[in-house]
Order: sequence, then structure tokens, then C-alpha cells
Amino acid sequence: MTDDSQPKRGRGRPRREGADEEILGVALDLLREQGYRAFSLDTIVERTGIAKTTIYRRWPSKSALVAAALAPLTPAPGAHVDALLREATEVLNLLADSDGDVLDVIRALLATRRPLLRDALAGHEDADQLLGALVVRLLLDGRIEH
Amino acid sequence: MTDDSQPKRGRGRPRREGADEEILGVALDLLREQGYRAFSLDTIVERTGIAKTTIYRRWPSKSALVAAALAPLTPAPGAHVDALLREATEVLNLLADSDGDVLDVIRALLATRRPLLRDALAGHEDADQLLGALVVRLLLDGRIEH
Repeated sequence: MTDDSQPKRGRGRPRREGADEEILGVALDLLREQGYRAFSLDTIVERTGIAKTTIYRRWPSKSALVAAALAPLTPAPGAHVDALLREATEVLNLLADSDGDVLDVIRALLATRRPLLRDALAGHEDADQLLGALVVRLLLDGRIEH
Repeated sequence: MTDDSQPKRGRGRPRREGADEEILGVALDLLREQGYRAFSLDTIVERTGIAKTTIYRRWPSKSALVAAALAPLTPAPGAHVDALLREATEVLNLLADSDGDVLDVIRALLATRRPLLRDALAGHEDADQLLGALVVRLLLDGRIEH
């Protein structure tokens, strides 16, 4: 289905099957353990044995990789507002120590998940306000109070 | 007080006095007339007669210039929550057609105004939610409903 199995220009090894999922899984674990600021590509290389250049070829920046790792946490359309906010809070908390970089992650998340997020929030009258309050605190304080 | 009056490395003319204020005033007018997307440095050059290189030397990107032009609209600490939201809504509306660029402007605004915004919102229980709802709509829809 994709070109991933084809060697590219004869350079480098073909990517290991399932490598993308493995990288994203480890990245999400790492975010949960250490938060955004301490998040390091070196640790992912260490845990997966996958070369840094391979990771960078797929996700050209830390924020792009983090956004991809967070994408599965995006709430499903029709989710109950409580579930939706719980998931959004988890995602925003994982970014809570990222300082200015948080905007790069939000940008990367919106680039791929905007329609899905829009659908998920539709019909929840309070969701904009409740989610918005978290975003405002994240932007102003760099963290969310528990 | 500043180095602005000193010629730099003997290149270019010294900046005209009051040029910064003039540029920012014209930039804010232009935002109000045309919104962010149509906002163009060429129009500012046309209206002020100030060289584009001079403007870029002071603000290296469109988003930095827009953030500087919007800064005077930042609410004052202690402002009533209604005034605060009115001003925030005006600022966000001026950015409402800016698509992904809005994050660059928010970043530039936060870089200089974060403590001031934090103070302005402090003590207003509903402000986070009301302002946050506007931000969420701006990020998801690229516009704010009136």
C-alpha cells in the first residue's frame, strides 16, 4: 500500500515493519514518564534500536513526533463530554512543561486532526469553555493545575 | 536610551524618529481594515514611505509585527471581565482569518505579554473559560462567530 517497503534511492536499510508504531508507542510512554521538556530522541533510539536518521526522515521535528504520538488520544466524535475533557486534559498535561514549544505541537496536531477535533466538540455546549480554560492556563502558566 | 539613534555599522540611514509608532499604528489600522490574511508589508511601505528592510530589521516576520501592533490592545490588569473579554475578542477577531499563522502571532504575543495577560486574567473566575472558548473556535474554525 505504501512505498515504505521499497528501498529509497538505494540508500539506507528498508524500514523495519511496524517501526512507526513502535516509535510512536515508545514516544507516548516517554511523554507519560517524563513530560515534554525531558522528552529526547536519544532515549527513543536507545529503547527501540532504530536509528535517529530513520526517525527524523519520518517526523522532521520533535513537535511533529510528539503530535503523532498524541494523535491516538484525540477524542472520538460523539464521545461524552466528560470523556472528551478527560482525554484533552491528558494530552494537554503531557505538554504542560513544554513552554513555547507547545504551540508547535498544537500546530502539528491541528494540521492532521482539526476536522476530527471539530466533530468531537460539536454539540457539546460547554466543551469549548472547559477545554479552552485548559488551553489558556497551558499557554499562560505552562502548566495545568490539578 | 536606546541604540536606535546610532547608525549601525555605517550602513543604512538612521531610523526616522517615531517611525516605530507610525509603523505599528498603520499596521493596526490595516489589520482592522483587511484582517490578517490580506495584511501586507507592501501596503505599510506604501502608506508610511518607510523601507521594507527597515521594517524587517525591527520585526523579522509578519507575525512579530502583528503581535507588536496588537500589544496595546492587551487588557490592563484589574480591568473588568467584560472589558477584558471585549478586548480579547477584538484581538482574536483580527487574527480570525489567519489560519495556522495565528499560532505564530500568539507565540509572539505571549513572548512579551504573558505576565501582563496572566495578571489581567487573575481573579476573574469565568475569564479563562470565556476567553478559552474563543481561542478554541479560532484554532478549530479559523474564525469566531458573531
